[in-house]
Amino acid sequence: MQSCLDPGDEVIIPEPFYANYNGFACMGDIVVRPILSYIETGFALPPIADFEKVIGPRTKAIMICSPNNPTGYLYSRQELEDLKQLCLKHNLFLFADEAYREFCYDGQKFESPMHLEGLEEHVIVLDTVSKRYSACGARLGCIITKNKEVVATALKFAQARLSPGMVAQIAGTAAVDTPKSYFGAVIEEYTERRDILVDALNNIEGVLCKKPGGAFYVVARFPIDDSDKFCQWMLEEFEYDNKTVMMAPATGFYSTFGAGKNEVRLAYVLNKQDLADAMHCLAKGLQVYPGRTINVTERIGTRH
Amino acid sequence: MQSCLDPGDEVIIPEPFYANYNGFACMGDIVVRPILSYIETGFALPPIADFEKVIGPRTKAIMICSPNNPTGYLYSRQELEDLKQLCLKHNLFLFADEAYREFCYDGQKFESPMHLEGLEEHVIVLDTVSKRYSACGARLGCIITKNKEVVATALKFAQARLSPGMVAQIAGTAAVDTPKSYFGAVIEEYTERRDILVDALNNIEGVLCKKPGGAFYVVARFPIDDSDKFCQWMLEEFEYDNKTVMMAPATGFYSTFGAGKNEVRLAYVLNKQDLADAMHCLAKGLQVYPGRTINVTERIGTRH
Repeated sequence: MQSCLDPGDEVIIPEPFYANYNGFACMGDIVVRPILSYIETGFALPPIADFEKVIGPRTKAIMICSPNNPTGYLYSRQELEDLKQLCLKHNLFLFADEAYREFCYDGQKFESPMHLEGLEEHVIVLDTVSKRYSACGARLGCIITKNKEVVATALKFAQARLSPGMVAQIAGTAAVDTPKSYFGAVIEEYTERRDILVDALNNIEGVLCKKPGGAFYVVARFPIDDSDKFCQWMLEEFEYDNKTVMMAPATGFYSTFGAGKNEVRLAYVLNKQDLADAMHCLAKGLQVYPGRTINVTERIGTRH
Repeated sequence: MQSCLDPGDEVIIPEPFYANYNGFACMGDIVVRPILSYIETGFALPPIADFEKVIGPRTKAIMICSPNNPTGYLYSRQELEDLKQLCLKHNLFLFADEAYREFCYDGQKFESPMHLEGLEEHVIVLDTVSKRYSACGARLGCIITKNKEVVATALKFAQARLSPGMVAQIAGTAAVDTPKSYFGAVIEEYTERRDILVDALNNIEGVLCKKPGGAFYVVARFPIDDSDKFCQWMLEEFEYDNKTVMMAPATGFYSTFGAGKNEVRLAYVLNKQDLADAMHCLAKGLQVYPGRTINVTERIGTRH
């Protein structure tokens, strides 16, 4: 962000989005202009008209993450083509966080803005070994762009950092040789987990969750008053069979105040049996949560 | 810097200083106000009056590094007391880079601003495993302060970074148990290296180098027109016995344009024999360097 934008410049980000984008923008005094995406469409790209509404003289970039954290949404080729036209029209950078690139399900092909002809000078891809190789402790990533001026500027920041960790560099270099078969097995496992999670969620009364195309997260709508309160309540006040479920309130992924109050992000990074148990536990929790916003149709007697 | 200063705020740094401070300041749109320190005093703390001259409404901090990179200068208790009075008078933060804390020679005690009574809310110590444990590839450091507001702010930046590398954290934690005897042997070795280096330098005609109290660097004055040209010439054009000497032009450690043109930083991180050979090689290079600024008294015939 600091390589491409000046203090006071603006970046448009469809929300909900990875909360740290806010922090990174803040470090460079860069202004985040959020655009709402909606659970009803599975958090697809908002209409281009919504972007046009907030584009002004200080707008310099659009930031996307596909497959998305926190929604799991996988952008289509058409959505990227629409973004391309928008970026060319207004001369905007397109930042593409591709941390979850390998995690695409149902045979869907991953599409990168890097594949868009004519947008070479605009696209900046952010990559990492964190998710691909389950190596988030390595703290190793990279910036990929064909824009030579951006590379030259980013190198100045890189020089101040001197280098990533040496051991991480050695491990990251070796990880590149991971055989393709590894990813096949991983994708199969995650697809099954996703199906267990999403099917179980939609079987809970008052819960809405579209089946996302990638990553290992979903954002679900719950019949609750306040996701921060609910997630805290699940951890501190609720237990079922001596267990509970830890989730992230979606409010933290929205920049718009008040948005996401009845949405929660769930990560399907448990094995299938634990995941099924967790969904059972969650259902029990939602039945008895004091801030529940719809009537409970099951008998309260089934509580823990 | 970004935890304590706003964009446009100023930090005073005695120069020459570690060049990356400029980069870190730049990231937060923070203005570096350099104060010259002088080779004749061994790069001691500049007079407090020189600080007063540049202190203005936007001045928020003073940054020091002791033992110093690039000069090796070790600040005295009195110098720190003087800085304390200045910081209290103008309500300034005192950033203390203590990367070389263990590297103090001639029985001199290391003095930290953290030891100054009454300055608890002003002092921010920067520490690292890089030099102490020869582990610069770990990329692991920390901020130490008694100022709770600064800690709370720094934690926000830390949260955006998520964590340092996991392997580095494990290694760094283990390194803390390094026995004291290790440092005794290291200090003895570095003291001998420093003496070999500084004595050899001062035996070269036209060279000036005070003996510094710590770290493993010196800044020496050479009879040359331009240290950037000279260091490049040594690498590209000169050789003696199939070898040459790589040094850092001091210009990179000055923020004031034109300063350090006849100064060079040397690091004594070679073993004693190699260091002695390097000084012999350097002497030969200085004899024949085309940009030499004083007459050569030895016969040119001794050149390689």
